[in-house]
This record gives sequence, structure tokens and C-alpha cells, in this order.
Amino acid sequence: MERYDAAIIGTGPAGLSAAVTLKLRNKNILLLGSADLSRKLNLARRIDNYLGFPGIAGADLAARFREHLDAMGISVTEDRITAVYAMGDYFALQGREMYEASAVILAGGVNQGKPIPGEESLLGRGVSYCATCDAALYKGKETLVIGYSDREEKEAEFLAGVAAKVTYIPMYPGETHMSSGIEVLRSKVLEIRAEGRKRIASTDAGEIAADGVFILRDAVSAGQLVPGLETDGAHVKVGPDMSTNLPGLFACGDIAGKPYQYIKAAGQGNTAALSLTDYLAEKKQA
Amino acid sequence: MERYDAAIIGTGPAGLSAAVTLKLRNKNILLLGSADLSRKLNLARRIDNYLGFPGIAGADLAARFREHLDAMGISVTEDRITAVYAMGDYFALQGREMYEASAVILAGGVNQGKPIPGEESLLGRGVSYCATCDAALYKGKETLVIGYSDREEKEAEFLAGVAAKVTYIPMYPGETHMSSGIEVLRSKVLEIRAEGRKRIASTDAGEIAADGVFILRDAVSAGQLVPGLETDGAHVKVGPDMSTNLPGLFACGDIAGKPYQYIKAAGQGNTAALSLTDYLAEKKQA
Repeated sequence: MERYDAAIIGTGPAGLSAAVTLKLRNKNILLLGSADLSRKLNLARRIDNYLGFPGIAGADLAARFREHLDAMGISVTEDRITAVYAMGDYFALQGREMYEASAVILAGGVNQGKPIPGEESLLGRGVSYCATCDAALYKGKETLVIGYSDREEKEAEFLAGVAAKVTYIPMYPGETHMSSGIEVLRSKVLEIRAEGRKRIASTDAGEIAADGVFILRDAVSAGQLVPGLETDGAHVKVGPDMSTNLPGLFACGDIAGKPYQYIKAAGQGNTAALSLTDYLAEKKQA
Repeated sequence: MERYDAAIIGTGPAGLSAAVTLKLRNKNILLLGSADLSRKLNLARRIDNYLGFPGIAGADLAARFREHLDAMGISVTEDRITAVYAMGDYFALQGREMYEASAVILAGGVNQGKPIPGEESLLGRGVSYCATCDAALYKGKETLVIGYSDREEKEAEFLAGVAAKVTYIPMYPGETHMSSGIEVLRSKVLEIRAEGRKRIASTDAGEIAADGVFILRDAVSAGQLVPGLETDGAHVKVGPDMSTNLPGLFACGDIAGKPYQYIKAAGQGNTAALSLTDYLAEKKQA
């Protein structure tokens, strides 16, 4: 398996800035996330404080970021990483595929909402964050997908090709666009609990029983993503150089704390990339 | 005297980013520095890692920053601040004029070179960092100006209108453009010492005696700028929110530590501005 110098999780301003700086330092990088770049950025109506771009629409700024990637020959690998394991002198990253990298930058943003009651305690026991990863476990079974953006509809469709039944609860406004085999239910999920082998989602429209519940958000919480990572609530604990408690693992942008700002995220991405470069140089000498 | 909400010292990416964010928060700001913006930025041949501007010349990026200021109606007050005093619930800033602000952001960059031996011990005793501030003290006397950029030639000319003699040592390559009354000497200053009322600069071209020596750089060192400020070498000690040990005083960009990078400076300027906004809000409530 190819061992990358650095894997970067997230294609918001933090991850992209880190990618650009690492590429300039001739590092062999793996940039993981959505090729459409940050959803939050794309939806921003107007950004006034990204220095150099007065009053720019989020989609336009995203287009400028894409131009920067293209100019430097940086591509995005579209995968959603659900776990990062520190293996000693490298990291293993689990997504739809497995990857290896000598160092990792977490730049996947932060979920602004709270987890659904029951979600965290049932994770890995009938609750999953990745449909494409765990679909095979639910062959011929009943599943519930709670999607936080229309990007998750693709995941639900993938699941529908394997599972006997998919119920989809969109947590966003607007139409859904999925095949007729998927039952779409507009309701608020109040709690998830286990009853024997079934998982029960209680919603304001009644209870739904399923063998597996998929909760699909743009960002996986940092603590669940990396076993052993020190966090402070939803944020990764970082030093001024963006290092975490795990050597070789860095974090930047929203996941590293407030304020949630594009230019701050880009700045921290740059710092994380330079710290990672130093880390690799020291490791080589040791 | 007008009391600004915030004074920002420095017109590099950190100071400009702070100014933009504070203006968006409807703060009454005083942005102090060169209207030409950062000299280091203007001279940068090519910048590859300011996300959104692939392979841009420093002068072009500075032009984009100026457009951002113009779009938001932010103007630069051309003054060089030589001292900042914490007065309790506000700050007094000493430049060619005096200013008052409820809070301050230090974003003046860092001098990459070491001080001249003798410089720090003689500061305020025949050695000065500001010709326009201290010129009056040297009426009819002999002065030596050590200028680290061609911007300082204006200062030397101002001094020549007051002092009996000005010797100018340019610490940069290229021609100087000053009136014939100023003696230009190309040499390296090795040390400055006191001999009675005279200050003696020993150079590799011999010794120069003067009543006053002016050492003019783009940035005044942080420790000398603000009495009581905690520093770590050339850098101000800051927390993750860019706060310093003095309540209401924030620092960002190169002055707050390495790496010396434009996008990191801009990111920190944004964070400092938001922290300052919180500081003012809390002060108002107290």
C-alpha cells in the first residue's frame, strides 16, 4: 500500500491551505473529502472578512480555492474517513478504502449540532456514520438513514442496493432526489435506543424500528474519529503549532476550536502543514 | 481626544485582517502604519500559499488588500508608534501624535535581525527609534541615522531640517534619494557606545561621533514598544485567542511568533479582532 507523507482530512479552507503548503514543500499528500469542497463555504451567501476578497460569495471563494488546487496539481480523493489509527510510526485511515500516511492533519470541521440522544452510546452497535463502509452488514435488513445534507442521498441510494429497506429522514429543507424504493420521512429524531437486536428511533412522527441506523453528517466528531485523541468538547486540543497529543497528528480549522472563520482556518492549515513538515524532518533524522 | 474602540499597529496581513473584522463588527478603529502596506509583502516576488491567490506577486496581493480596505472604507493613519502605555481602562499610544484606544492589537511584524550591540542599553539615552518624534531634541546638533529601508530617507530629511548635521547609513542595497545636505555612508555598524555626551558608532569604515543616533526599522521590538508586556525573545507571548498578559492588548502575525507566513498572519488578525470584540463587550457589562 502506498504510504503518503501526509493525509489531510477535510476540504474546507483549513485542509486546502494545508494541502497547498505541503505540496510546496514537495510532500506526497492525500487530500480526503468532497471534491465540491466545504459545503458550509459553498452555501455562504457573502463573506466579508477573507482578506483580499471583499464581499465575495461563498461559491465564488470556493471556485478560487479550486483554481488554486488546479494550479498546483492537487486533487481531492472523495472518501469519508471514519477512523484514524495511530500505528506507531504511521497512521492507518479507514474510509471506503484503507490508506496509510506518515502524518495526518484533521481539518474536517465540526458539527454545530448536538448528537442525538443515544447516538454515541450505540455507535458501532447498530449505529454507523458511514453507509458505504457498513452497508454489507445490513444485506437484506431494514435500515434507517438520518441525513444532514443532500450529499447523503447518494449514500442512502448505495445502501438501498444492499438492504431490504431504507427509510430516509432528511435533516435539511428542500426536496430529496432519490429512487422510489426509499421511503422519505420528514420528522425530528428525538432519541435512538436498543431493543434486543433492533434499534428504535423515536421521532415526533412515531417510532421507527431498524436493524441499523446511519447518521450521516459532513463531519465526524474528532473524539470518535481518532481513538486516544485528547479533545475538549467538540474540539481537538491543539498547541500553538496545531499539534495534538498524538505525535504526527495535527488539527486545524473549526475542529481545533472557535472562532469558526474561513481566514483563521486557512491560517491554521498553513501552520499545521509547516509543523507537520518539521515533524517528518525530525523523524527522518531520528 | 478621541477614544477609539481599537487601535491596530501594523498594516501587514495581520493588521489588515484585524481591521476588516473589527470594521464589520462596527468598531471605531484606528489603523496605524504605512499606507503602502507591508514592505515585506510588497517586495515578495511570488507568494504561492495564500489560499485563493495561486502564484501571486507580493505587490499584487498588497493591491488586493488595499481594494479590500477601500471597499470597506478603512483608511490608514500614517504614523509610527514608538510606545504603548496601559492606562487602566484604556491605552495611550505615542507616535508623532498621541492616540487613545480602549484596546490595542499589535501587528507590527518582527525585525528578523539582531539589535546592534549597545542599541538596547542606550535607548532613550541618545539612541532613538523615531526621528519625527525626537528631532526637536537635536536642534543644531549632530545626528546619525541608521536606516533599514528607503522609507527612512524621509525621516532623515525631516531631521536634516532641524539638526546641524545628518549622517545616513543605509542598511539596504540600491541608491539613496535625499537632499545633498545629508552625508550618506555605506558601512556596517558594529557597535554603539557612549563617551560623555557623545554617542559613538564604530563601523567598519571607522568611528562616527554624534549627539543622537536614530535606528529606524519597520518594526519596533515588542518588549520596547509596550512596558510590562510579556515576551519570549522577539515575540509577544500570546494565548490561543491572541491575548497577551495585558488585558485589552492582543498580538498577531509575525510579532506573535513563527511561522512567518501571510495567511497565518491574516488568520490570527481575524482571531485577535474577535477576541478584542469579546473583551469590549465584557468590559461594557462590567
